[in-house]
Amino acid sequence: MGSNLARNLASREGNTVAVYNRSYVRTQTLMTEHPEAGFVASETIEDFVASLSRPRTAIIMVQAGKGTDAVISQLAELFEPGDIIVDGGNADFHDTIRREKAISATGINFVGAGISGGEEGALKGPSIMPGGSALAYETLGPILESIAAVVDGVPCVTHIGTDGAGHFVKMVHNGIEYADMQLIAEAYDLLRHVTGHSPAAIADVFTEWNKGDLESYLIEITAEVLRQVDAETGLPFIDIVLDEAGSKGTGVWTVQNALDLGVPVAGIAEAVFARAVSSHPEQRGPVRASISARPEIAVVGHTFVDDVRQALYASKVVAYAQGFDEIIAGAAKYNWSIDKGAVATIWRGGCIIRAQFLNRIVDAYANDPSIPTLLVDPFFAAAVASGESAWRRVVSTAALSGIPVPGFASALSYFDSLAAERLPAALVQGQRDFFGAHTYKRVDKPGVFHTLWSGDRTEIATEASTH
Amino acid sequence: MGSNLARNLASREGNTVAVYNRSYVRTQTLMTEHPEAGFVASETIEDFVASLSRPRTAIIMVQAGKGTDAVISQLAELFEPGDIIVDGGNADFHDTIRREKAISATGINFVGAGISGGEEGALKGPSIMPGGSALAYETLGPILESIAAVVDGVPCVTHIGTDGAGHFVKMVHNGIEYADMQLIAEAYDLLRHVTGHSPAAIADVFTEWNKGDLESYLIEITAEVLRQVDAETGLPFIDIVLDEAGSKGTGVWTVQNALDLGVPVAGIAEAVFARAVSSHPEQRGPVRASISARPEIAVVGHTFVDDVRQALYASKVVAYAQGFDEIIAGAAKYNWSIDKGAVATIWRGGCIIRAQFLNRIVDAYANDPSIPTLLVDPFFAAAVASGESAWRRVVSTAALSGIPVPGFASALSYFDSLAAERLPAALVQGQRDFFGAHTYKRVDKPGVFHTLWSGDRTEIATEASTH
Repeated sequence: MGSNLARNLASREGNTVAVYNRSYVRTQTLMTEHPEAGFVASETIEDFVASLSRPRTAIIMVQAGKGTDAVISQLAELFEPGDIIVDGGNADFHDTIRREKAISATGINFVGAGISGGEEGALKGPSIMPGGSALAYETLGPILESIAAVVDGVPCVTHIGTDGAGHFVKMVHNGIEYADMQLIAEAYDLLRHVTGHSPAAIADVFTEWNKGDLESYLIEITAEVLRQVDAETGLPFIDIVLDEAGSKGTGVWTVQNALDLGVPVAGIAEAVFARAVSSHPEQRGPVRASISARPEIAVVGHTFVDDVRQALYASKVVAYAQGFDEIIAGAAKYNWSIDKGAVATIWRGGCIIRAQFLNRIVDAYANDPSIPTLLVDPFFAAAVASGESAWRRVVSTAALSGIPVPGFASALSYFDSLAAERLPAALVQGQRDFFGAHTYKRVDKPGVFHTLWSGDRTEIATEASTH
Repeated sequence: MGSNLARNLASREGNTVAVYNRSYVRTQTLMTEHPEAGFVASETIEDFVASLSRPRTAIIMVQAGKGTDAVISQLAELFEPGDIIVDGGNADFHDTIRREKAISATGINFVGAGISGGEEGALKGPSIMPGGSALAYETLGPILESIAAVVDGVPCVTHIGTDGAGHFVKMVHNGIEYADMQLIAEAYDLLRHVTGHSPAAIADVFTEWNKGDLESYLIEITAEVLRQVDAETGLPFIDIVLDEAGSKGTGVWTVQNALDLGVPVAGIAEAVFARAVSSHPEQRGPVRASISARPEIAVVGHTFVDDVRQALYASKVVAYAQGFDEIIAGAAKYNWSIDKGAVATIWRGGCIIRAQFLNRIVDAYANDPSIPTLLVDPFFAAAVASGESAWRRVVSTAALSGIPVPGFASALSYFDSLAAERLPAALVQGQRDFFGAHTYKRVDKPGVFHTLWSGDRTEIATEASTH
């Protein structure tokens, strides 16, 4: 991804790009393969730094972790105040906060920038989520704008917020990406097993869906993957791929941080866990072997394919609503001023979750920047309401037919939890007060109460809650 | 909880208990209220330490966090090699590992011990999960055995494993407790809204269920809570409790650590998130207001109440299976030798999740200590199979009727994922290979492959996976 980003930078008018790798052979290979880029190659980091004009700007693209710290400290020793070090990897935003604090104390600027788009996006125009200081962005912004994807004339980059804000938002982007991919996978699985469509037929369905509200890069490539035929066996490609999904760290981080923030991102969590379940063949095999019969596929109406489309759309709204809730909670906790509409705007192009759909989120935050959840935005509320019956039919059919839909079902339960007049959380509070004297509040008056469950079962007002 | 544990200790023959609080007033109150305990009170920590016979054993019961470190270091300065410091709070097991390492270097023993049972359990007999060294357990074990709950003549305490093993297992115990409580809450909600039972009638149902396979402390107290009538209003207690569930840290930790370990504990995660959803009234109110109509309650068969019982049981098996998977993965990562059957044995009494059910888990691990998941144990497999149709009907009905069942639905999808011949994880791998060249494996031969998606779409074998 680093070399593609360098080529992208070099291809823009006015940019001359210096390149340094720990392995000079890799640099030489890059020079040989891409003479058109006009790279300035350096064998040592000292030469690299000396070759940059001031204020120097270096973008580090290395695997997140200790390697990043090593490169940063090498650069920080050679850079001067006003220079800018950009970490373009998928760093943990806590690390970015720590690094920004340490580096900025020396007068050098440190910018953690999330970059999404994969290898192709890096080359042709990614979506870029830089954090760091506003001052650093004055210099860095135009450079990043020159290489970012452009949608409707707007480059897919914005200054997200200070220190770790960029990597935080990139993390949530990836969490949403997990959820979106899982929901698409469930839609595929339902069409495959409930309606019995072939992969090629499902590819056509996805191509059709890509012309409507679901239009997105992930839907588009899903059709491509499903249409692919394995040259060796003549079988659908999807049937020769081992069904154990891998993952890197950002999905896990999104859920772990949501848990710290008290934000229920169950849709993202189910997606992360679905990959984990798939990667435990030592459990899957024995469970399959222990089961004598799988349920019959439930009979479905003639609208089932469109039902799945609507269920996918409604579940997707929930996943994005949960992701934006996490951004809002993270901004509050870490003192970032994040423009949610601007985030949705720069996700419209370059990144993996790019979609028309993001325009609706831009609109929602433009209409009401303090909207408590995207689910109450009039457009999304109407969209979910119109698909609600279909969504319920799909989850019901999946449950009866033995098709796993952790994403669809979790999203529906989330919606129903928010919509419920009363939740059984009241019972949970009653249980907690019974066994742990954790106290409860009442619906009819303020205060904190405890019932003397092991005494005469009268209620007492308590001063402080151990809530 | 600390004073109750001290009273419990003092009540056992042969024990004399010294008590120290940072606030001497609290110690004096305890002395006055419980003269029968014969406590030896100390105004200073020096006096407290001097009053103990060697090897000294001190059990710390303070709020987890920095306060714990302060008390530990005070004690460590005064204790001598061979003495034992026990942290009986809900410490993060990572802290316990760190503390054990630091303290044991001085020759003093440090034992992190999870203690479950709430205030009443602490007094009458809790379930105790001590970590630390086997040597420390030789001295400490008999003391803990004297105060633990006893089931079938067996005290509910065992040496879990070294350093942080006890607090880790206590953490997972609490995570399972979250899941169990959420599932019970969903069962209540279904009976309340689908069949229209009153709280008192549901209390009777739970009392009945408590005579069968579901027999457990949580089912028992659920009936008690549901039967309670609010003295002030004459309404069912459950209807005057604010339906926003609180939580402390251990549920969140259970999920965060499972994510680190790659163990899908979706049932526990949904329970943690369900409490979080309930505690966002600023979202719930507007969503309710934005919805014009809720779905009709689906028509259900005459077996629905029993269907819910079977769904609850099957979902509970899943929650416990996921929890034990986390214990197994944690033991592997942190080099603990944990006897799963012994863990199930000491959870049979004293703790919040105590239940007959645990005996089935003891049996499962006795039959096959290396069973890959509890779901393939013959007893549990048969139990789930017999309830499977009911489970499906309940999740289907809930989806159609707008009743949130995040726990039931997640558990069913988990089961269906493990049971599936093929998972759509293959599509996820195809997508990941398409946009990020993350590679994939094939079902028909070894190796790691990548398709040239932006090239001629042929497949190449790759040397290393970025899987």
